[in-house]
Amino acid sequence: MYSFKCDYSEGAHPRILDALFKTNLEQWDGYGEDIYCSRAAALIKENIGRDDIDVHFLVGGTQTNFTAISAFLRPHEAVISAATGHICVHETGAIEATGHKILTKSSADGKLTAELIQEVLDEHEDEHMAKPKLVYLSDSTEIGSIYLKSELEAISSICRKNQLYLYMDGARLGSALTSAENDLTLSSIAALVDAFYIGGTKNGALMGEALIICKEELKTDFRYHMKQKGGLLAKGRVLGIQFEALFQDDLYFKLAEHSNKMADILRKGILEQGYSFLTHSPSNQIFPILPNRLIEELEQKYAFYRWKPIDSFHSAIRLVTSWATEDNFVYQFLEDLKA
Amino acid sequence: MYSFKCDYSEGAHPRILDALFKTNLEQWDGYGEDIYCSRAAALIKENIGRDDIDVHFLVGGTQTNFTAISAFLRPHEAVISAATGHICVHETGAIEATGHKILTKSSADGKLTAELIQEVLDEHEDEHMAKPKLVYLSDSTEIGSIYLKSELEAISSICRKNQLYLYMDGARLGSALTSAENDLTLSSIAALVDAFYIGGTKNGALMGEALIICKEELKTDFRYHMKQKGGLLAKGRVLGIQFEALFQDDLYFKLAEHSNKMADILRKGILEQGYSFLTHSPSNQIFPILPNRLIEELEQKYAFYRWKPIDSFHSAIRLVTSWATEDNFVYQFLEDLKA
Amino acid sequence: MYSFKCDYSEGAHPRILDALFKTNLEQWDGYGEDIYCSRAAALIKENIGRDDIDVHFLVGGTQTNFTAISAFLRPHEAVISAATGHICVHETGAIEATGHKILTKSSADGKLTAELIQEVLDEHEDEHMAKPKLVYLSDSTEIGSIYLKSELEAISSICRKNQLYLYMDGARLGSALTSAENDLTLSSIAALVDAFYIGGTKNGALMGEALIICKEELKTDFRYHMKQKGGLLAKGRVLGIQFEALFQDDLYFKLAEHSNKMADILRKGILEQGYSFLTHSPSNQIFPILPNRLIEELEQKYAFYRWKPIDSFHSAIRLVTSWATEDNFVYQFLEDLKA
Amino acid sequence: MYSFKCDYSEGAHPRILDALFKTNLEQWDGYGEDIYCSRAAALIKENIGRDDIDVHFLVGGTQTNFTAISAFLRPHEAVISAATGHICVHETGAIEATGHKILTKSSADGKLTAELIQEVLDEHEDEHMAKPKLVYLSDSTEIGSIYLKSELEAISSICRKNQLYLYMDGARLGSALTSAENDLTLSSIAALVDAFYIGGTKNGALMGEALIICKEELKTDFRYHMKQKGGLLAKGRVLGIQFEALFQDDLYFKLAEHSNKMADILRKGILEQGYSFLTHSPSNQIFPILPNRLIEELEQKYAFYRWKPIDSFHSAIRLVTSWATEDNFVYQFLEDLKA
Repeated sequence: MYSFKCDYSEGAHPRILDALFKTNLEQWDGYGEDIYCSRAAALIKENIGRDDIDVHFLVGGTQTNFTAISAFLRPHEAVISAATGHICVHETGAIEATGHKILTKSSADGKLTAELIQEVLDEHEDEHMAKPKLVYLSDSTEIGSIYLKSELEAISSICRKNQLYLYMDGARLGSALTSAENDLTLSSIAALVDAFYIGGTKNGALMGEALIICKEELKTDFRYHMKQKGGLLAKGRVLGIQFEALFQDDLYFKLAEHSNKMADILRKGILEQGYSFLTHSPSNQIFPILPNRLIEELEQKYAFYRWKPIDSFHSAIRLVTSWATEDNFVYQFLEDLKA
Repeated sequence: MYSFKCDYSEGAHPRILDALFKTNLEQWDGYGEDIYCSRAAALIKENIGRDDIDVHFLVGGTQTNFTAISAFLRPHEAVISAATGHICVHETGAIEATGHKILTKSSADGKLTAELIQEVLDEHEDEHMAKPKLVYLSDSTEIGSIYLKSELEAISSICRKNQLYLYMDGARLGSALTSAENDLTLSSIAALVDAFYIGGTKNGALMGEALIICKEELKTDFRYHMKQKGGLLAKGRVLGIQFEALFQDDLYFKLAEHSNKMADILRKGILEQGYSFLTHSPSNQIFPILPNRLIEELEQKYAFYRWKPIDSFHSAIRLVTSWATEDNFVYQFLEDLKA
Repeated sequence: MYSFKCDYSEGAHPRILDALFKTNLEQWDGYGEDIYCSRAAALIKENIGRDDIDVHFLVGGTQTNFTAISAFLRPHEAVISAATGHICVHETGAIEATGHKILTKSSADGKLTAELIQEVLDEHEDEHMAKPKLVYLSDSTEIGSIYLKSELEAISSICRKNQLYLYMDGARLGSALTSAENDLTLSSIAALVDAFYIGGTKNGALMGEALIICKEELKTDFRYHMKQKGGLLAKGRVLGIQFEALFQDDLYFKLAEHSNKMADILRKGILEQGYSFLTHSPSNQIFPILPNRLIEELEQKYAFYRWKPIDSFHSAIRLVTSWATEDNFVYQFLEDLKA
Repeated sequence: MYSFKCDYSEGAHPRILDALFKTNLEQWDGYGEDIYCSRAAALIKENIGRDDIDVHFLVGGTQTNFTAISAFLRPHEAVISAATGHICVHETGAIEATGHKILTKSSADGKLTAELIQEVLDEHEDEHMAKPKLVYLSDSTEIGSIYLKSELEAISSICRKNQLYLYMDGARLGSALTSAENDLTLSSIAALVDAFYIGGTKNGALMGEALIICKEELKTDFRYHMKQKGGLLAKGRVLGIQFEALFQDDLYFKLAEHSNKMADILRKGILEQGYSFLTHSPSNQIFPILPNRLIEELEQKYAFYRWKPIDSFHSAIRLVTSWATEDNFVYQFLEDLKA
């Protein structure tokens, strides 16, 4: 049984494990105050080309989202998100648990637009309603789509005009930035958003997300929030070591490229066999629509999620590739699809 | 300028003021531990015909909603509501501020149904999602519709089958229960829901809502929650005195009947002049669709809300009547509509 | 049975009830947007002698405290309070329920000092601890003591030096400001603190507290917080009308003077009979130490709280006077004490 | 510079790293639904000798504390803790951030007693105060003391009598259970408390705490709380693998024994040189009182915390040993102390 269920099925990239091994018995201060966190932050700043940003390493994506968002907002302020946003659906109400409403807009491709944001602003006019203050988006999105630079610019522009913070969930940012259709970089993102995170968990780390805070007023006291919300790892070195490894020799991007490449092969092969897709997703998640009977057969050899029934005889499934996906299984899957 | 903006534009019914006056210099213990709160609770229990319910008096509707809901739920549990629910739209995220997600369903008439509730249950399957646990509904709803007994029975049934609490916001319960189309009573409601409140603010009191807790496990320690959330009024007598007055000689229902009667006259008169309505609302809120130019003229003499643009030339407005609405203004409005 | 249990045993001062009566059938917008709230705010600003302050009317003291404090603080910030502070003891954890830790210091007289505040600052040094950000004090305190101007100046000074907000709970501010030992005014308080409230509930109103926000950065969006926390009363006029009455012809201060005068008579009479007091309290709460057997006899005719056992044979009791206390009962109490 | 600052200065025990290495490319479901989490849980249950307990693996201690406590309590319920409790001092108000007050009692040795708990109960009598519901204690405590079985039995007894949950923070449980003075076991603890955690971070793991829930009613839906609070690690295997390694061949206890042994050598050596200690701490934290001048010299070669000034010339320092402490540095420290 080979799994295409997610991009965190395996452990970590060997270079990360090696780095953990080599440094294991060194003594360092806890809570991110070690040399590796410093070096990893320096590498990320170098990649972005800015020194006036804060870099924090947290353990997981949900944690990063609610820690950042609750730190940024006052109690009456709300988040704007696409209805498919990870924080709306798959985080067990974590944002609400910190006290904040999420205002959602349906969006076929999982992306927000300046127009949708304007609609939310128009609908929230006075103190009887929560006040929209932060825009949440994911790149790549929860259904595999990615933001073009022009789209992000339009969103950034409406946010700045309306004093909305713009926050990007980058759980799968590696896959987005190495997509064939992408025209963003860490640097251009940092110029357009107020905070974002670079996901490690879904791109080769054991765990870990690097939160980048660009906007000055959001930086103050952030470590207090990390500690309060359980995100200040005692052995912070474990996160620093991993991100240092990921940002040496562009490993982070190479892993994401591999992941995308595996998805490309699958996408192309499935298309060639005449199947269509639920959504356009030029990243490491694809959603082919297949006959249910075929799906049942594939389930004998492969693990993946059934995403959505399409009609009585067809369903969309989700296939996710990763830095660790082996191409022979990809080709085998396409073979088995044919059979 | 006569106002049809809401049902809390005036002070209190004179019998309430008289009762406050007469008892003013009596000394009583605070926080609802006075004779008037006891008597009011007894009158309500008598009306419902049950002694095994708890009655608490709180100050306002938003406060009652978030105090009850946050007391009833554990941190991971969520509320199911129609998208137009007062808690979703007009309470500044008060429920989320206590940590709970609201799961909404669109509904043309502002009412939930057993089917919509089932949909929410089907969509929430595991610990990555908030767990639906309480159904919130309003009678009458925010757009004036009311629940029939059969509808409430169906909802109650699905709730009990799925261990969902059923909570009814009765800010305008008086108007619902005295609607021409209504077949519910306080007693039948108490048999079908786990908790509900009888709204005083919108039916003749200076302020005050009577929360009824029917389900045993929800009763424990409720006064702690009231105190913590600011809902345990120091001079609790002020609430007790008002509700005693409201439940003597059926004053509560007579006031609501008057309110409905005023709305009936408006509705019938508007209909006779050939206008239609945004929604079917057999209670004290009506939503006629009028030409914008006519609306502008009416706005010279009457205060009301523009609810929703219908097309370039028409809008729906909201007219609300109350216990204090004077019939001469109602007839005058219809005259002016004609002109 | 005559009650000295608290200063909210009766209803409202007759001038307040009259004002409610006279204005009862006027139609006004809700939520504090009526002429009476405007007028009351204007009277308060006039008394303070400043126009650059915001005045909001809330329903109760606990509500005012947690609404203001949670609006002012970010999630990691904490409150400094005397251990006897009302928010620490008698508000069912309301501040913590909004997410904030209270850092307490024991204080024999119920008052904070600059030195105690400095101690808290010295003990909280890094992000592993909550960050002290707001100083809470009550005037008069929960045990009847009051702040002198020099004391408040010293506290204000250390707060400004350390970017701490200074917030005063004025549930019994009337009694403090009319105490024989007082040298503060609303005006001098407004110059020294960032926000405070003028208590109505405990000085002649049915309910209501007037929150004054002096510091610019704390004013933004405050009505959102009021709504979210249940403090934006629908018929806001009820609060405006009461505070207008209280601030016409200095009624507020006259009521407090009466209350203090009644306490003075009690204090002097008890002292003359040779009894001592638990604490120095030049306001409307006094804490005489009496033999338990005498207390038991007094309890036959008077209601009051046993505050604290002193030894096997003596206890401190609490006697509270109010705007409504009748002097004949005061004299009778002293007679009965003698007997 | 050798560090005695804490017990999480190094990485992980080599057997843990080996296990991570060996299993690295295996594919497993996320969120703790892998074979290693199952096996680790089985080993822990076997050690405890009970199958009717739930075992959950979380990432860190603060996270475990606030996730468990907020899952267990209703909004008005409070925690009882010694004033030195980790949750009171060093978790940035994390418990309060979930809405709960902590009621503290001073205690010279950092331990709670049945008497102290009774005092808190006696002081909290009605709905104007938060309701004590959960007792928090740490073994070993934050100042190195440990609970004897008889002490824990007395606490357990008063908790059960008063329907208080008993929760033990076991961040340093290994050191407690292998202390020379200890007479508890995982099994006897599980019989006396309702929930506790076995700390991995401070005893040889990269990160990870194993929460044991013994009381039936506290088990329901716990994974929802973990997810909502950021404690459901995506690659949950990383925690399972580590705890499996720790509970094979008693590695967990051997590591703790080593840690205690290193502390014993330090304690004995310091004592022999005529110094005293701030507190009796038979575990891996010791607090010798040394002349400030000597401390300054030691700081040239060793890292440790200055804990508390004793007088103008002496201070208590904290020395912490761990599974990784090398004995040559321990002996060297004693040599340098002599010199």
